[in-house]
Amino acid sequence: MPSPQKNAPRHDGRKPNQLRPIQYRTGIAPHAAGSVLAVCGRTQVICAASLEERVPRWKEAQGIPGGWVTAEYSMLPYSTHDRKVRDIMKGRLDGRSVEIQRLIGRSLRAVVDLEKLGPRTLCVDCDVLAADGGTRTTAISGTYVALKLAEKTLIDAGKINKSFLKAQVAAVSVGLVPGQDAPARPLLDLDYPEDAAAEVDMNVVMTSRNEFVEVQATGEEATFARGEMEALTDLAAKGIRQIFKLQRAVLTG
Amino acid sequence: MPSPQKNAPRHDGRKPNQLRPIQYRTGIAPHAAGSVLAVCGRTQVICAASLEERVPRWKEAQGIPGGWVTAEYSMLPYSTHDRKVRDIMKGRLDGRSVEIQRLIGRSLRAVVDLEKLGPRTLCVDCDVLAADGGTRTTAISGTYVALKLAEKTLIDAGKINKSFLKAQVAAVSVGLVPGQDAPARPLLDLDYPEDAAAEVDMNVVMTSRNEFVEVQATGEEATFARGEMEALTDLAAKGIRQIFKLQRAVLTG
Amino acid sequence: MPSPQKNAPRHDGRKPNQLRPIQYRTGIAPHAAGSVLAVCGRTQVICAASLEERVPRWKEAQGIPGGWVTAEYSMLPYSTHDRKVRDIMKGRLDGRSVEIQRLIGRSLRAVVDLEKLGPRTLCVDCDVLAADGGTRTTAISGTYVALKLAEKTLIDAGKINKSFLKAQVAAVSVGLVPGQDAPARPLLDLDYPEDAAAEVDMNVVMTSRNEFVEVQATGEEATFARGEMEALTDLAAKGIRQIFKLQRAVLTG
Amino acid sequence: MPSPQKNAPRHDGRKPNQLRPIQYRTGIAPHAAGSVLAVCGRTQVICAASLEERVPRWKEAQGIPGGWVTAEYSMLPYSTHDRKVRDIMKGRLDGRSVEIQRLIGRSLRAVVDLEKLGPRTLCVDCDVLAADGGTRTTAISGTYVALKLAEKTLIDAGKINKSFLKAQVAAVSVGLVPGQDAPARPLLDLDYPEDAAAEVDMNVVMTSRNEFVEVQATGEEATFARGEMEALTDLAAKGIRQIFKLQRAVLTG
Amino acid sequence: MPSPQKNAPRHDGRKPNQLRPIQYRTGIAPHAAGSVLAVCGRTQVICAASLEERVPRWKEAQGIPGGWVTAEYSMLPYSTHDRKVRDIMKGRLDGRSVEIQRLIGRSLRAVVDLEKLGPRTLCVDCDVLAADGGTRTTAISGTYVALKLAEKTLIDAGKINKSFLKAQVAAVSVGLVPGQDAPARPLLDLDYPEDAAAEVDMNVVMTSRNEFVEVQATGEEATFARGEMEALTDLAAKGIRQIFKLQRAVLTG
Amino acid sequence: MPSPQKNAPRHDGRKPNQLRPIQYRTGIAPHAAGSVLAVCGRTQVICAASLEERVPRWKEAQGIPGGWVTAEYSMLPYSTHDRKVRDIMKGRLDGRSVEIQRLIGRSLRAVVDLEKLGPRTLCVDCDVLAADGGTRTTAISGTYVALKLAEKTLIDAGKINKSFLKAQVAAVSVGLVPGQDAPARPLLDLDYPEDAAAEVDMNVVMTSRNEFVEVQATGEEATFARGEMEALTDLAAKGIRQIFKLQRAVLTG
Repeated sequence: MPSPQKNAPRHDGRKPNQLRPIQYRTGIAPHAAGSVLAVCGRTQVICAASLEERVPRWKEAQGIPGGWVTAEYSMLPYSTHDRKVRDIMKGRLDGRSVEIQRLIGRSLRAVVDLEKLGPRTLCVDCDVLAADGGTRTTAISGTYVALKLAEKTLIDAGKINKSFLKAQVAAVSVGLVPGQDAPARPLLDLDYPEDAAAEVDMNVVMTSRNEFVEVQATGEEATFARGEMEALTDLAAKGIRQIFKLQRAVLTG
Repeated sequence: MPSPQKNAPRHDGRKPNQLRPIQYRTGIAPHAAGSVLAVCGRTQVICAASLEERVPRWKEAQGIPGGWVTAEYSMLPYSTHDRKVRDIMKGRLDGRSVEIQRLIGRSLRAVVDLEKLGPRTLCVDCDVLAADGGTRTTAISGTYVALKLAEKTLIDAGKINKSFLKAQVAAVSVGLVPGQDAPARPLLDLDYPEDAAAEVDMNVVMTSRNEFVEVQATGEEATFARGEMEALTDLAAKGIRQIFKLQRAVLTG
Repeated sequence: MPSPQKNAPRHDGRKPNQLRPIQYRTGIAPHAAGSVLAVCGRTQVICAASLEERVPRWKEAQGIPGGWVTAEYSMLPYSTHDRKVRDIMKGRLDGRSVEIQRLIGRSLRAVVDLEKLGPRTLCVDCDVLAADGGTRTTAISGTYVALKLAEKTLIDAGKINKSFLKAQVAAVSVGLVPGQDAPARPLLDLDYPEDAAAEVDMNVVMTSRNEFVEVQATGEEATFARGEMEALTDLAAKGIRQIFKLQRAVLTG
Repeated sequence: MPSPQKNAPRHDGRKPNQLRPIQYRTGIAPHAAGSVLAVCGRTQVICAASLEERVPRWKEAQGIPGGWVTAEYSMLPYSTHDRKVRDIMKGRLDGRSVEIQRLIGRSLRAVVDLEKLGPRTLCVDCDVLAADGGTRTTAISGTYVALKLAEKTLIDAGKINKSFLKAQVAAVSVGLVPGQDAPARPLLDLDYPEDAAAEVDMNVVMTSRNEFVEVQATGEEATFARGEMEALTDLAAKGIRQIFKLQRAVLTG
Repeated sequence: MPSPQKNAPRHDGRKPNQLRPIQYRTGIAPHAAGSVLAVCGRTQVICAASLEERVPRWKEAQGIPGGWVTAEYSMLPYSTHDRKVRDIMKGRLDGRSVEIQRLIGRSLRAVVDLEKLGPRTLCVDCDVLAADGGTRTTAISGTYVALKLAEKTLIDAGKINKSFLKAQVAAVSVGLVPGQDAPARPLLDLDYPEDAAAEVDMNVVMTSRNEFVEVQATGEEATFARGEMEALTDLAAKGIRQIFKLQRAVLTG
Repeated sequence: MPSPQKNAPRHDGRKPNQLRPIQYRTGIAPHAAGSVLAVCGRTQVICAASLEERVPRWKEAQGIPGGWVTAEYSMLPYSTHDRKVRDIMKGRLDGRSVEIQRLIGRSLRAVVDLEKLGPRTLCVDCDVLAADGGTRTTAISGTYVALKLAEKTLIDAGKINKSFLKAQVAAVSVGLVPGQDAPARPLLDLDYPEDAAAEVDMNVVMTSRNEFVEVQATGEEATFARGEMEALTDLAAKGIRQIFKLQRAVLTG
């Protein structure tokens, strides 16, 4: 039997294995091929997919047929409580943004059939409108919806003649978070105060075929045991299954 | 008596002196001190105001009391039909954006009492979500609403103890636009196709005290006569008065 | 009858509607196709026009025949009393310079027949040697002279076979400037102390066909009424007509 | 009983669970506080640790006592068969390098007691001299040796008076690699040809206390099952234990 | 007896040991503390000296009393027959310019008594208005004149109370230049066609105390013998003595 | 008869005309076409040569047959006692590095037959591993060895069919260095303390045909007489002859 402590409500009233309220508001960027405002609690990310009728030079040079998917991630200056200086003002891309946009790109490429896409580039932009933890995972789950919407637009416009998406992809964060005078326990979908307090933070990306795309477990100034990683992985997998349902609901709704 | 041609409906059905439908959706960026999604027809601009408890170095060096207002303008990559490369990817700020953000800054400083603001900086961000002409004027009219909302937030939070806004400020574009087989005629609030066809383009910024802050009339590869400038100025002034009403409606609503 | 105050001499002895002494010293940059040192009082700007036998990529992509005119504006480090750090040392183009060079480019394109120019780019460089107010308007008036000289060089060299200049273009600044214990009054061709004191500053660009190319009226931290704008426009138009005479004198002299 | 296929020798003759030959040649950079050339098969990384008597500004601003550890990773132009252009020539830091240096920094901070380090910054540089797969894990294992050597130098010099290293840290890559006409099997310590062929690639960082610091499993254009991730984790843990022995051997030898 | 070939007139009619006509037109940049347009044949360089009441940070950190002299060199876009793109447009300082401005700085520091200068920085700017060979040596000789003029301005203004210049400094180029069907011979003060044809190019900087400050002999894709270097050094020394006279003439004139 | 002072041993026991111990450790960068760790006393420079099957665009545009040699020089962050910030972190190439890499490039081009090289670029990289004076001359002498090794690799690989190296090239520094209470005397191959104390510093580059490629004599805040320059040149020439022997020994050994 779990200790009462272990199931005590979180600072915002959620249960340990409960997601924040998630919404996908479609059409936020009307000029994109597909777009959605992905909302997860107080976190909000604009996800937009555009199509370019060319592939990157290095891809072309390789001579392998098929397209490419590229992602860019940026925090709008007013997404944080203290205004964040724009990258262009500092003259360099933020290191954390680079890391995140590479993760998003890899996640999407796992479910896009690049050959079916043809010699095109899907450009996925994720701009954080409000940051309260989980922006990278919210961006991944949201960009799937934007990609699916873009796919429909492109098929309707006759630019593409078959689906290039092999499965759904979604992501969630989990972590070991200590309570007040209490040992760390596994929590699903960390918000910013939980993320800041977490001893271990893990981002999990899965497909709707129940396979993993990416698992990143990090103990910033801390470490974790094998069993803890497995418990967190279980928790994440359950959360992601719920997100898949929400994605399907908005796309078929 | 004006010719029928002169009053013929525009390509989207509007009358020559008619604004596009304008909306201010407040709270778009919940972490900003004040924010609004300014919508003008198919043009959409996120306007957000943040407060920093310091002034720029050059201002400090001058030793003049009071604060400062700074503006940044950027087009999100998916705001145009062909995706726009981010400035940070090109490594330099777009020339047109520089020009526009300087205009927005000057416009706002005309209605902010910098002494009452105290030793603080109001940072105003304008990010274009969808571009269909008139993004700079939509940004100016929208940022006034964002500033007014920010003022309330800051007074409520006890950070500022009196209003620093001396008047409303708003802007509109007007232009001389030729029709199909018809001479150019003055039109209010140009959308993108009208702007692209215009022989003369004019941006007018006014305060609710019926004074001008900025008038920029430009004949790109064309010129204009004194009388034309005056007719355009009249048309703009009428349009701006309607925008003032819309600003007040949303702020008191 | 105007008050004596209104016609009182200015700090340098000029009448309110009097230009500073203007000179165009041709050939300042012997390797350029056309060049002039434009001197307006204590303001000095090197204006040079060069020809490149290609058009910008975006122009080529549009498929519209004809050439292009591009302008660059820069302040030499020793043009101001306190040495100005070069842009390359700061790693970014100065915002004010961007705004000015866009204005110069638009002004020149209004009088250049791009089709007659053919698939070439006229590059106009304006480097400020000494700044005492009115550098952008001095640059515009000077570059016309440089362009006319370049046109002659290119025709003489057989590179171009007919004039591509449709009219003269010139510019001047006007402003509402308060005196000591006196209300603001309209003044022509502001020098630096007048520009710094001005409540309203207006730059007017006209062609010798008596039409406007660009009107930019700005109330930095101030505003202006309709009548004031009209009085300033009149004053500017008169000043520009004198500049046209000076341009013609040096070109036919 | 495992199939013969599963235990067939690898392209370089290694067993599936066999590391490449690893060496730590100390003192490669004589001016650093501690340095080592970490060699893993044909991969070679210069790892050097320097001490700066200050902390980053953001750390200082936070007011938390203690120091910081920062890492930089770069590939020397001649580390790859086709010469790699230097970042400074392209004007931007390589995205992959950013991702890797953030990983190295987090890994080291997990074993450094920042309070014992005092108000200082340990700067760890990793420059790849030859790249043949596993450069990031070779860098992490090598920097531990460099840090331990630097610790001794600093204690000997009286700059620091006690050990700030809480445990050893090391890393290894594992992956699911298909053979010729054979299904993918788990392999330890991938070299470049194996890494390029891998369906799933996993980097594991552990401490000598048998705990994880970072686990990054990535299916570039592929996915993986829960059981596969666990098998790979086991394989990695065994490899890392051997690396800990090699680190101790060189440090006590 | 020298062969007739050896003393044959040069392509512009000069004798082998003859300088081009040199002029120093003072006051070219009226806002600088001292300025001169240095003209050497068809080469023209604006040389301007400004004073900043501070020293560079690294100098301050060293704790050595005294000031500093810094130099910047740039080619104006219209100084060459084919327009030269500005450094800021390419985003990086030209390599050749870096090399030259370091040479100019070292040359001037050899004759400035940094202690007498006091805690100030002399900023010397050299902007090439027209390039026809010898721009770096023309810049060095010209900046001496600008520095001497600046010294007078600063003493007159009471900012400095004694001369900080220990001697005159001047420079000239010499080279081994082959003729049409004739072997290379030593020539003084190469213009652009001679410089382009030279097998060996040598820049010599000397003080009026008959000592050398800098000697740079370069055989781009060629080499030279000991005796040739000595003959060139003699030729340069004679030329520089004439330049010292010209400098004195303009400063005392 | 020289004074005893003049032949007194140097701070490290060397005679005035004695080189530091020099070694060339070949194969330091196994993926380069040719590489060497050039060691000169406590100075260590990685020299690596790579081949690219193309020429720079400007070379191609000139239409002259043959290849090119380009050099890059960089100090690794841990090469100095106080860690040196990487250029990419400051966003600009170090001025001193630019000057040095241009010198290295010119030196190598003096002994490479560009026509025999064919339409290829030899990229030479010099990364300083430890700096104790003489890094640029150590780099030049070392890159010759790297180039010779690369030549063999390329001939063996059938990429090139004949030698493109016309002669050996090597470099050394000499200087006038004052002793404690003793006048300056000429010393060969300055280490860092000697270089810092030197009144005059001279870098000499020669070929094995006993000709000069480059002579750079610099009196930073000092000057030198004709006789001193000649004495230094003699001293350098003798040192370089010894380096040629060491180069040959390692290449034939």
